Amino acid sequence: MEPDRFARAALSRVVEPADGEVHGLVATVGAVEAFERVRAGAGTLARFRPRVAVLDTERDLDIAAKVGARLVVPGDPEWPERLDTIPVPPWCLWVRGRLDLAETVERSVAVVGSRTATTYGEQLATELAGGLARRGWTVVSGAAFGIDGAAHRGALAVDGATIAVLAGGVERPYPSGHAALISRIAADGLVIAEVAPGSAPMKSRFLARNRLIAGLTRGTIVVEADLRSGSRNTVTHAVAACRPVGAVPGPVTSMMSAGCHEELRNGRAVLVTSVDEVIDLVGDLGDDAAEPARGPVRPDDNLSPVDAAVLDAVPFRSAVPLDDIVRSAAHASLTVRAALGRLERLGLVTESAGTWRKRAQRKPRAG
Amino acid sequence: MEPDRFARAALSRVVEPADGEVHGLVATVGAVEAFERVRAGAGTLARFRPRVAVLDTERDLDIAAKVGARLVVPGDPEWPERLDTIPVPPWCLWVRGRLDLAETVERSVAVVGSRTATTYGEQLATELAGGLARRGWTVVSGAAFGIDGAAHRGALAVDGATIAVLAGGVERPYPSGHAALISRIAADGLVIAEVAPGSAPMKSRFLARNRLIAGLTRGTIVVEADLRSGSRNTVTHAVAACRPVGAVPGPVTSMMSAGCHEELRNGRAVLVTSVDEVIDLVGDLGDDAAEPARGPVRPDDNLSPVDAAVLDAVPFRSAVPLDDIVRSAAHASLTVRAALGRLERLGLVTESAGTWRKRAQRKPRAG
Repeated sequence: MEPDRFARAALSRVVEPADGEVHGLVATVGAVEAFERVRAGAGTLARFRPRVAVLDTERDLDIAAKVGARLVVPGDPEWPERLDTIPVPPWCLWVRGRLDLAETVERSVAVVGSRTATTYGEQLATELAGGLARRGWTVVSGAAFGIDGAAHRGALAVDGATIAVLAGGVERPYPSGHAALISRIAADGLVIAEVAPGSAPMKSRFLARNRLIAGLTRGTIVVEADLRSGSRNTVTHAVAACRPVGAVPGPVTSMMSAGCHEELRNGRAVLVTSVDEVIDLVGDLGDDAAEPARGPVRPDDNLSPVDAAVLDAVPFRSAVPLDDIVRSAAHASLTVRAALGRLERLGLVTESAGTWRKRAQRKPRAG
Repeated sequence: MEPDRFARAALSRVVEPADGEVHGLVATVGAVEAFERVRAGAGTLARFRPRVAVLDTERDLDIAAKVGARLVVPGDPEWPERLDTIPVPPWCLWVRGRLDLAETVERSVAVVGSRTATTYGEQLATELAGGLARRGWTVVSGAAFGIDGAAHRGALAVDGATIAVLAGGVERPYPSGHAALISRIAADGLVIAEVAPGSAPMKSRFLARNRLIAGLTRGTIVVEADLRSGSRNTVTHAVAACRPVGAVPGPVTSMMSAGCHEELRNGRAVLVTSVDEVIDLVGDLGDDAAEPARGPVRPDDNLSPVDAAVLDAVPFRSAVPLDDIVRSAAHASLTVRAALGRLERLGLVTESAGTWRKRAQRKPRAG
């Protein structure tokens, strides 16, 4: 195995994700030399000695091989270039699944949210993910209960692509209640982790994992989040990586939407209500732009002030002569006559024996 | 009666609200001369001749007196100065109720929305209006079914101030199904109109009325609006008058929130979920600012990276010696010992006979 690959595999077992000191070292002297220094354990790097003492990268690679996982490092054709643009890229990625990682994340969206989601949130996550997957977008999430699981399932249900990013080793499904789901994602999509096989999912690794979910994708959508949801940490990472963030609103009476509403109020997220609006947010300008939501257009929507005043002056229940309309509309007789002609052509009024009345329309709503 | 008062009363019967030509005339030559020219009916002003022919301002004043309504014109102590700052102010206002109009609108918010509101929307409108009224804010709305009615009722329920702005004459309750509600508003709050008594509520007058709802208040809150709701017209007027607009989100599955969501997406409105956030939007800077919504703060929220890594390395179920924690945390022994001391003081870990374990906390949520 190439020394760079091996060094990165070793770093992913010994050094915590997003370790600032080692990140700086890799950036300046390269992974091979950085790992040599970590192994030597001089100065501040002495803190890694206990882990280096039990390091067995060959065994980690064996574990990976047993679950069909491969190691992907910067420079590999499969390495997602997008990861080179985040503040602290991973040393490497451990990848399970048959899809090409770089191709699969090219058009991808993170769909995330609370573990304790409501039925509303889970249904929306499923629908949004399904709709995105049907339009060729990969749905990336964290395989957690609640919104994450619903998002993966929504993509799988329409035979779409989905990626689960785990906080622990790629060989151990977490949460264990999602073991079957994660197996299915490994079979049909991709399951990835930045920590080596054998690594346990710990709180700090969840937070680091969230930066990968945000960093791998074109943008992040929060479907439901309570005020303390970990998905708000994913939003922080998306903002830090200059990726757009969308948040789905919900009832203000639901604490599970309070985190989304707060992200909309503080301006880190844009409000999204549909697959079109998500694609408008994360897609290519022009190709993917959504139209503003509009109600149906009615014939009396764009009348001039004069025509509107004349239409207002024509009664609905009984037909009246021109003079009545002139008096009521307060416009000159000739003006009113011309307006009535235009309104008649729009199907808004009807004339019979010199008298006029409104024609039945679908009732317009004044709120 | 002073000529200016009388002229304005007459204009409010003959000329439609917000008539651009007559507005320009009043602004340049004053109300008395403007009304003289309207009465003379030369040139384009000939369109008012049929209405001038049947004009009887003394009778309109009598009708007003019978329902206890008074005429308020610019320059009166009761005239709201705020109305002088909107693009087309009314000629005058017809006012029912004992409150002083200028004082009552000083701290006021418009609470508006669809006539065909949902239970969610009506409950929220009632609660918001009640909360605003309790905090000394006047709730202004249009007395329509749905959100408007709920807003008025919410203010009345806590003995707060509320103003109904009608599209027709101040003596005719519209909609008639809200006659009792409008009487109660006239008794406890104010009912106002810019058109003279005897004027019918017509579509164009509803649109003009919306500009008064927006113009009288410090800001407008849309609680529920379908895409074609008339309350979106009120938003347009508020934006034109440079007043802040808030919109309450709701389920994306509800068409009655679609107009609110569209106003949030197009940037005309700011998302609001509570009375505090409404007051933050429309109130005085500093006095009325709302804190961002936050979840409860936990002892492990603001740990340094080292302390967080050490805490991660301490097991919950069994107690372990320092060396185990040093190996797992990948920090120097002295560093780990110092961190454990800090974590113990925060009540996060506990020591017994040289071994350490986590103390039970309320389970943190990772979304």
